[in-house]
Amino acid sequence: MQPLPGFRDFLPHECATRNYIFTKWREVARRYGLVEWEGPVLEATELYRKKSGDEIVGQLFNFVDKGEREVSLRPELTPTLARVVAAHEREFKKPIKWFSIGQFFRYEKQQRGRLREHFQLNCDIIGETDFSADVELIALCIDILRAFGLTEKDFVVRISDREFWTDFLRQQNFPAEQWDAVLQAIDKSEREPREKSAEKLGPLADPIFSILDDGGQSEKLDRLVDGLGARDLAQYVDIDVRIVRGLAYYTGTVFEVFDRAGKLRAIAGGGRYDNLIGNLSDGSVSQPALGFAMGDVVLGELIKETSTAREKMGNAIAAANKIDIYIVIAKEERRSDALAQIQHLRDRGYRVDYPLTVTKVAKQFQTAEDLGAGLALLYGDEWPQVKIKELATREESRAPHDRLLDKVSKFFNVSAPH
Amino acid sequence: MQPLPGFRDFLPHECATRNYIFTKWREVARRYGLVEWEGPVLEATELYRKKSGDEIVGQLFNFVDKGEREVSLRPELTPTLARVVAAHEREFKKPIKWFSIGQFFRYEKQQRGRLREHFQLNCDIIGETDFSADVELIALCIDILRAFGLTEKDFVVRISDREFWTDFLRQQNFPAEQWDAVLQAIDKSEREPREKSAEKLGPLADPIFSILDDGGQSEKLDRLVDGLGARDLAQYVDIDVRIVRGLAYYTGTVFEVFDRAGKLRAIAGGGRYDNLIGNLSDGSVSQPALGFAMGDVVLGELIKETSTAREKMGNAIAAANKIDIYIVIAKEERRSDALAQIQHLRDRGYRVDYPLTVTKVAKQFQTAEDLGAGLALLYGDEWPQVKIKELATREESRAPHDRLLDKVSKFFNVSAPH
Repeated sequence: MQPLPGFRDFLPHECATRNYIFTKWREVARRYGLVEWEGPVLEATELYRKKSGDEIVGQLFNFVDKGEREVSLRPELTPTLARVVAAHEREFKKPIKWFSIGQFFRYEKQQRGRLREHFQLNCDIIGETDFSADVELIALCIDILRAFGLTEKDFVVRISDREFWTDFLRQQNFPAEQWDAVLQAIDKSEREPREKSAEKLGPLADPIFSILDDGGQSEKLDRLVDGLGARDLAQYVDIDVRIVRGLAYYTGTVFEVFDRAGKLRAIAGGGRYDNLIGNLSDGSVSQPALGFAMGDVVLGELIKETSTAREKMGNAIAAANKIDIYIVIAKEERRSDALAQIQHLRDRGYRVDYPLTVTKVAKQFQTAEDLGAGLALLYGDEWPQVKIKELATREESRAPHDRLLDKVSKFFNVSAPH
Repeated sequence: MQPLPGFRDFLPHECATRNYIFTKWREVARRYGLVEWEGPVLEATELYRKKSGDEIVGQLFNFVDKGEREVSLRPELTPTLARVVAAHEREFKKPIKWFSIGQFFRYEKQQRGRLREHFQLNCDIIGETDFSADVELIALCIDILRAFGLTEKDFVVRISDREFWTDFLRQQNFPAEQWDAVLQAIDKSEREPREKSAEKLGPLADPIFSILDDGGQSEKLDRLVDGLGARDLAQYVDIDVRIVRGLAYYTGTVFEVFDRAGKLRAIAGGGRYDNLIGNLSDGSVSQPALGFAMGDVVLGELIKETSTAREKMGNAIAAANKIDIYIVIAKEERRSDALAQIQHLRDRGYRVDYPLTVTKVAKQFQTAEDLGAGLALLYGDEWPQVKIKELATREESRAPHDRLLDKVSKFFNVSAPH
């Protein structure tokens, strides 16, 4: 009777919530000129091993299929993106600006905001090295969250730069093969006791702690903030060099989005990954790229905890689920006339419901209200006139069966109102 | 560089085609008052074994997960529906009218119109025994196909009734435990040599062939056609008792939709399955039910082969992918003014694109045309005026930067036109 642990059933209310999130994601991504694409949910395990090493396999839903292929339910989109871009990049003008909405899977211990599946929006810009693309991508991320009614009081984009740290390590003449370990230690420093980080950082502990305590100075990140300022979005970002992101493939700008209250996991994260497509395609195609991913679970939690955003979602869902017209069949002799009208109205795009079987008139009106209908049309004694009831005002009128459409379209004032 | 065999990458054009199909599915299902839900793509293998027996497992993407659970990528939605209805039916008024759009998987030999994954629309009505629900469901299936611009010349719904045959077998005093085998043989009779069917049908071969050759008479199916006639949809159906559908769980009305030319596999199929929810819930919940499924692959082929439907799809995709406004940056000094405008227009819901880097003006206009923009706004020497070009008519005008919105909204005549 239950779904598998970590998997969700989307009953109508949950499905409407999910669709609301998808609709906003799609709407804002398109305002930025991004076009939608999608990859398969099942891929060769090798694709993930190649990008993330053997450790990743422990977290995958991976198996051997009936054709002896090692396959996995995708944990993320970027390897598929790299595969598709490597195969098709010549067909598209650069920069390629793509978004995708799909489901992803990890075999993980369950905890709050962390299921075994979730939906994710991925937005990527491929083929542009210019810093303006970094600004554009972060602006998009902010505007998506703003579209849900979230403000700078509700979330913050913490922006950082991998190059800030690699420049520092280069200045310190620190051996390049140990850079990754240092970056990982900085990434974890917020969540670990200082002594533990100090131990990992070794001789660099003092200078790094002093940068971290101070917040760090970066001319490049200042430019990023200025670029967002030109769009009146600077208040949504904080420069924070503690962000380096765990994944080794980032090469420049990195960012993570958190709720201001600091109660939830990251809402979104991304950055520039200029070498990944080249690495995953064994050098056959080289394209600079940057992108971010945003999941539905943490975002959904933040919306529910933020009154304006919650109300906005509630209104949108109620409006989206409403039917337009309920046909009340008060006399069974009129059923086939009613059905002709129902067909006619549906053909015009209206959402129309009616009782499938003989039902008391009062109960039919109750159902009309429950379904959020704007109008009820009653087929009964008035025939060949039809009684029209506006459910919000309880105002009643009549019109001939064969001239109802005028009245209906006047009421909704557009051809299909939902 | 390739997806797994039988899996599709959805590049922007394919993704737009898929979204077009989803949008129409959703739109028409909602006109009928159905509400959307969705289940998980991974389920316990037992759920499918219970419904379809051990044979089904051979066709599944099934595996043992890291928690030692036997799990499968779902091959169909109905078992999940039965599970969810059994767990939640008390929360919903009857009849429950639900639809769902999702991806399904089978490990099968590849052939035309038969991949290893496809998307499917499922529409179900639960909790209604009355025959009016059967008519409503078939009308919905027809109207969905009509919404794609397909007509009675392009497809036909072949309707039949399991009870027609079970009544016949009862009259013949044929042993009930052999009914399934006879029904299977009738189902296959169209695709098998007559001798082979005759062998399977044994003593019933003659009377059954005589019914099949004659087409069969059924008062109930006549009523179904009459019900559709009241909606002016009778021309879309043929009574055809050769349809019994392979799946053993159907109990009454069954139907399959084919292209009139008979070139493609079934476009959709369904019927009444009054005992399935009871069986799958071990009798804890009993609900009459009926439903159908329609896949994206065969439907997509039929649309592509039908000129009106293909044109309709092409127009819808082009309109859906258009941007509204392209901002031409003719002088780099104006970039940050242009960016403020871009932000402003996007906030109003317009789809706006612009060059991320210094680009020749002629090339920018070319990109504006390629992206289907309605307007180009040029930031250059005219500052603080902005040059406005209507791309379809090449008509030019000017307006002050800070009063552009009036002009723009007048051009699109709505707040956001895509």
